[in-house]
Amino acid sequence: MALYDLKSLLERMRKERPLVHNITNYVVMNFTANTLLAMGASPVMAHANAEVEEMVSLARAFVINLGTLSEHWIEAMLRAGRRANALGIPVVLDPVGSGATSLRTRTFQTMARELKLAVVRGNASEILSYASEAIRTRGVDSMHPVEQAAATAGETARRTGAVVAITGAVDVITDGHAVVHCRNGHPLLGTVTGTGCAATTAIAAFAGITRDPLEAAAAGLAFFGLAGELAAKRARAPGSYQVALLDCLYEITPEEFQAGAKLERI
Amino acid sequence: MALYDLKSLLERMRKERPLVHNITNYVVMNFTANTLLAMGASPVMAHANAEVEEMVSLARAFVINLGTLSEHWIEAMLRAGRRANALGIPVVLDPVGSGATSLRTRTFQTMARELKLAVVRGNASEILSYASEAIRTRGVDSMHPVEQAAATAGETARRTGAVVAITGAVDVITDGHAVVHCRNGHPLLGTVTGTGCAATTAIAAFAGITRDPLEAAAAGLAFFGLAGELAAKRARAPGSYQVALLDCLYEITPEEFQAGAKLERI
Amino acid sequence: MALYDLKSLLERMRKERPLVHNITNYVVMNFTANTLLAMGASPVMAHANAEVEEMVSLARAFVINLGTLSEHWIEAMLRAGRRANALGIPVVLDPVGSGATSLRTRTFQTMARELKLAVVRGNASEILSYASEAIRTRGVDSMHPVEQAAATAGETARRTGAVVAITGAVDVITDGHAVVHCRNGHPLLGTVTGTGCAATTAIAAFAGITRDPLEAAAAGLAFFGLAGELAAKRARAPGSYQVALLDCLYEITPEEFQAGAKLERI
Repeated sequence: MALYDLKSLLERMRKERPLVHNITNYVVMNFTANTLLAMGASPVMAHANAEVEEMVSLARAFVINLGTLSEHWIEAMLRAGRRANALGIPVVLDPVGSGATSLRTRTFQTMARELKLAVVRGNASEILSYASEAIRTRGVDSMHPVEQAAATAGETARRTGAVVAITGAVDVITDGHAVVHCRNGHPLLGTVTGTGCAATTAIAAFAGITRDPLEAAAAGLAFFGLAGELAAKRARAPGSYQVALLDCLYEITPEEFQAGAKLERI
Repeated sequence: MALYDLKSLLERMRKERPLVHNITNYVVMNFTANTLLAMGASPVMAHANAEVEEMVSLARAFVINLGTLSEHWIEAMLRAGRRANALGIPVVLDPVGSGATSLRTRTFQTMARELKLAVVRGNASEILSYASEAIRTRGVDSMHPVEQAAATAGETARRTGAVVAITGAVDVITDGHAVVHCRNGHPLLGTVTGTGCAATTAIAAFAGITRDPLEAAAAGLAFFGLAGELAAKRARAPGSYQVALLDCLYEITPEEFQAGAKLERI
Repeated sequence: MALYDLKSLLERMRKERPLVHNITNYVVMNFTANTLLAMGASPVMAHANAEVEEMVSLARAFVINLGTLSEHWIEAMLRAGRRANALGIPVVLDPVGSGATSLRTRTFQTMARELKLAVVRGNASEILSYASEAIRTRGVDSMHPVEQAAATAGETARRTGAVVAITGAVDVITDGHAVVHCRNGHPLLGTVTGTGCAATTAIAAFAGITRDPLEAAAAGLAFFGLAGELAAKRARAPGSYQVALLDCLYEITPEEFQAGAKLERI
């Protein structure tokens, strides 16, 4: 009955400890690394042009995150992304702040054009900014409802060739044909910086385990969201909530993941 | 009787969630973002020349922090600062480590000369370094008593046109005419990195709510210091204290803020 | 009977609060600074060519960490390192990811050739990569047993002139003649990012107190490992474990350090 064999995926994660290479923003690097370690994967961060191709070759998945973007990192993202594409290593994009500045919107489009992306995860405003330059958002928080982005997500998925995952009250995940909803999560996640970025890296960790990017995106969001729900039973304010979140990412068993995931094919 | 209507300021913070753009140091980026989220504001970090003017235009306040300074960031700080000035967006400067190296002392002076600063917040050594190149400090911790800096703060405020806020055992805040003391705070704040930087961004968040920079500085320091006091009732060592601090920033109600602030006009 | 007077070393740490200058990676900057503050030292991070020589001159120890390396930081590392050498300030190297990419392996060798290093701390793969370019590792986690690295550590110490400290289940520390084992530590340390880097900075803090780099390396690893053991009595998952670790670094008394250190001369 369950949509995916999540129990097996998590068992393999804990056993294989896939290396995930991240070129991500300064704000969330530490939290991203700790998220990967807690869930059972292995993080590495590297952005120098001189080493990104070598580093990504060692990895099972590669994350590009556009937060705190600077122009000389874009080349490193493209170099590592092209090598990952050549080697069949899945590339997951988080277009942080796309729609807020033209640098970010343009870089989202560059990445989608130059690379074969496995998954793009963003909030509604960020995803909408791909299809419409008229979309303007404020900083890195969404100004648009998930429903509005969901309406165009299928087309964005077909145009980019990537699975598109829009996170919000209900997460919408689509490859342009199938649509999966994820109802895991908790409002307290919005009180901690980098939880969106961490959800993206959780997707990448699962993309290092399964070849199906729709499954990876669904598993990553369900797993991270489930940890967010369980953490809310332990803590009700952001400092202690972030601590509980990392604890829960570590403690969720494969059986609990299978039972707690709220995924539904639409 | 109370110096300011702090209850209303905090109510508006939680309702309006002002976006605060930070060009800040790598050490504290995560903690700064979490401080803003916890207190009810919205953080964004961006430093690329290609986007800082666009990003700051979306913000209600702008923070320049000189920790982990590098020369190519100075241009981004000035670009964003000039745009903020043109749009009437308050600019708050934290001259981290001014007095420790000539790059930082010189950059403090450049920022004060090139930009209209709303508030400058630093420790005694950092503030003293503006007026006297003879001031030398060790790293990023103050080597001088607040009293010594307070004696010249009025002149620094008048010369820069900024409200000067010196943090220490008692915080001294002045616009060159009025002087306000803040007695909120706790020694454990000194055991966690970035609490000074976080206090600066708290000032900026209030500067996004009130047009009066003296009020913003007083409110920011009282609010952050009060959270520091309440956290000390929950935790007595730096790891758990930092967690409690973020929790308290989130939990303080407008009424508690009004009642707990220890502000006094001298 | 005890190998070192660790009680006195820690008393002096808490009294003298040695400034430790770090050029370290983005992932661990915050945790590194908090580690130093918690244990009683004083952190500063600075990497601009224009200021590193001035900053390192104020410090009692200097850390070079190769994580998230980029080429323009290498010059800053060398500049600060040369100044530290000229002033007799101990330089501690953490060759994060050496063996994973040629940039990092080459930079490890450059640092060892161009600078007088007091201590090099790494995992087995990183230390092995110095002697053998055939060593390849995956990301930043060791792929080799400590024993294999220990066999060549003496020669690496003699060639570099540095004390070599290899961390693993048992830590091996040698100056090429004497060998010390450290049995402090806990497996949960591996679930938190940056604990290796933090152990390196703990060594540097002790190198700011004692002139003997073998003693500094042994004291740093014993102290950090002891905190890791004590934290495991309070927390069993990574989020709360990291909080407890910082608390324990702060709370360990000089007497507890002397009694709890598991150091043995081989």
